[in-house]
Amino acid sequence: MDRPTGLRPTVAVLGVGPGDAPSEIGAAAELAELRFTSDRDELPSVLPGADVLFTWGPGNGWVAGGWGSVDRLRWIQSASDGVDRLLFPELVHSDVVVTNARGVFEGPIAEWVLGAILAFETGLRTSILDTAAGTWNDERTRGSVAGRHLLVVGPGPIGRSTATLARAFGMSVSAVGRAARPDPVFGDVLGPDDLHDALAVADHVLNALPLAGGTERYFDADVFTAMRTGACFYNVGRGATVDQDALTDALERGQLGGAALDVFEDEPLPRAAPLWSLPNVIVSPHVCGDVDGWREAVVDIFVDNLSRFVRGAPLRNLVDTSAGFGVG
Amino acid sequence: MDRPTGLRPTVAVLGVGPGDAPSEIGAAAELAELRFTSDRDELPSVLPGADVLFTWGPGNGWVAGGWGSVDRLRWIQSASDGVDRLLFPELVHSDVVVTNARGVFEGPIAEWVLGAILAFETGLRTSILDTAAGTWNDERTRGSVAGRHLLVVGPGPIGRSTATLARAFGMSVSAVGRAARPDPVFGDVLGPDDLHDALAVADHVLNALPLAGGTERYFDADVFTAMRTGACFYNVGRGATVDQDALTDALERGQLGGAALDVFEDEPLPRAAPLWSLPNVIVSPHVCGDVDGWREAVVDIFVDNLSRFVRGAPLRNLVDTSAGFGVG
Repeated sequence: MDRPTGLRPTVAVLGVGPGDAPSEIGAAAELAELRFTSDRDELPSVLPGADVLFTWGPGNGWVAGGWGSVDRLRWIQSASDGVDRLLFPELVHSDVVVTNARGVFEGPIAEWVLGAILAFETGLRTSILDTAAGTWNDERTRGSVAGRHLLVVGPGPIGRSTATLARAFGMSVSAVGRAARPDPVFGDVLGPDDLHDALAVADHVLNALPLAGGTERYFDADVFTAMRTGACFYNVGRGATVDQDALTDALERGQLGGAALDVFEDEPLPRAAPLWSLPNVIVSPHVCGDVDGWREAVVDIFVDNLSRFVRGAPLRNLVDTSAGFGVG
Repeated sequence: MDRPTGLRPTVAVLGVGPGDAPSEIGAAAELAELRFTSDRDELPSVLPGADVLFTWGPGNGWVAGGWGSVDRLRWIQSASDGVDRLLFPELVHSDVVVTNARGVFEGPIAEWVLGAILAFETGLRTSILDTAAGTWNDERTRGSVAGRHLLVVGPGPIGRSTATLARAFGMSVSAVGRAARPDPVFGDVLGPDDLHDALAVADHVLNALPLAGGTERYFDADVFTAMRTGACFYNVGRGATVDQDALTDALERGQLGGAALDVFEDEPLPRAAPLWSLPNVIVSPHVCGDVDGWREAVVDIFVDNLSRFVRGAPLRNLVDTSAGFGVG
């Protein structure tokens, strides 16, 4: 990337109105001209002359359509971890650098996954529902988390954070990734050829796949059928990596013992979706990582990267745009 | 204890009928004569001649009333951790040794406490209830477990197991016990004089007190008022260590942000109790430690101790009957 040292770059903030941004954005205004828009129709006037985009929520999905108005763009900071809505071929093949929000969400998401595992195993999910119903049922026992096996599919930062917590409970952990490789957290990441063997011994299966590189409907009927009967499934990545009908069927058949889902093919999950009423399903409305202060934390990453950008230093949280997810 | 080497002791199993005992009890039948009863009216015929009692559930509460029929008793193995229902002055002042079920329940209970902390902080409790209602509400954020402070009141095996898990989430932990003392897990256990200062900085407060040594209604209005506004409270010990009206009031006032309760003054919790319908309360029917296989694990402890007893070796899981809880 050329050094813009001495220049005062122009940043288009997409998906957030100026009054809606956390006050921490003020530090960015000292380094750059900021143009906010929460209206995609304004892109033809906002994008020309922008050196940088800072894309929030729906704003990630606007860049492809506005690409014709881009003339001097060099860097896009996404406020999300997953950049599937942002990337498109022209961007991937361009020299524009993309960075994401790594560091903000993975710890909270890992907490949520452990919370869901514990809700199923310890009977807390039942107790929460029984409390609402006024039901005292002490004729039940519960599972143990200690000794269970967790399989992480998609061993990125979320999977690593989850694995570390799971081990503290005495769970064993394995991981399947794009290719077999050594990993500092998992020891060894297994390759795709080992998926079915790994599924057969897992009590809990975490889907932390990005939507990238052919992961669409990765969790299909064959994958669910390969799971141990009664295993629980967790999705914190993207809804499109799961064949939702196959998931529903696996739950209805009792192949799966439970599922905690934060993402869905269509969001909000349509009211008619069977997932709402199946036993042992937890529907979470794509908020599992939305920890108090996440917006401020994302702005802090952006401001830090912006200060690096203006002094020509390497940016944090680089995304491998050809792979479709964060580096490292 | 005198050595009964060479003798074949007689064991009265109280609170369990012979057909209801886990099959693991068969190993005990090779070492001793076993007399089972699930009927307290049979105590006058069961207790005379018994060297050992193995007390389950309600059977713990029968010993005091049957004490007049005891003639050669030397050891009582309880199937519980808490022995408050078992102990009474004549037993405490006798030479009868008491052992408990330490090792079976504390790990599962610690899992449950972490599950409850996570259910509150990560929004999973809300999602579980929203799933049942068919509600998609993504206009909410959640708390972080990392960085929160847990106070353990009653730093025995349950508290220690919970503290170890909590630290894995990046929580800080403190503990208040009967007296200030160094502790291998907590570093320092604080004494009773430090309780209010400790409460003032805790986000989550675990009551793991035994019902012993003056702990009745230890958690009273003053204690709840000393808590940080919005703190969450967990009770896994005994219901009688809490002034339940004061707890209810603290929840109604919003002094407490939530409570997860496995034990109550009266069990089952009466249907009219306000705790059933207060927001942010999880009622668990005294099952938080009842992990699959707990009965077999308790029998394994008994069989191991029985084999020690017949060869005159020291027993495991000794209870300090004058203090009212396990040693170490």
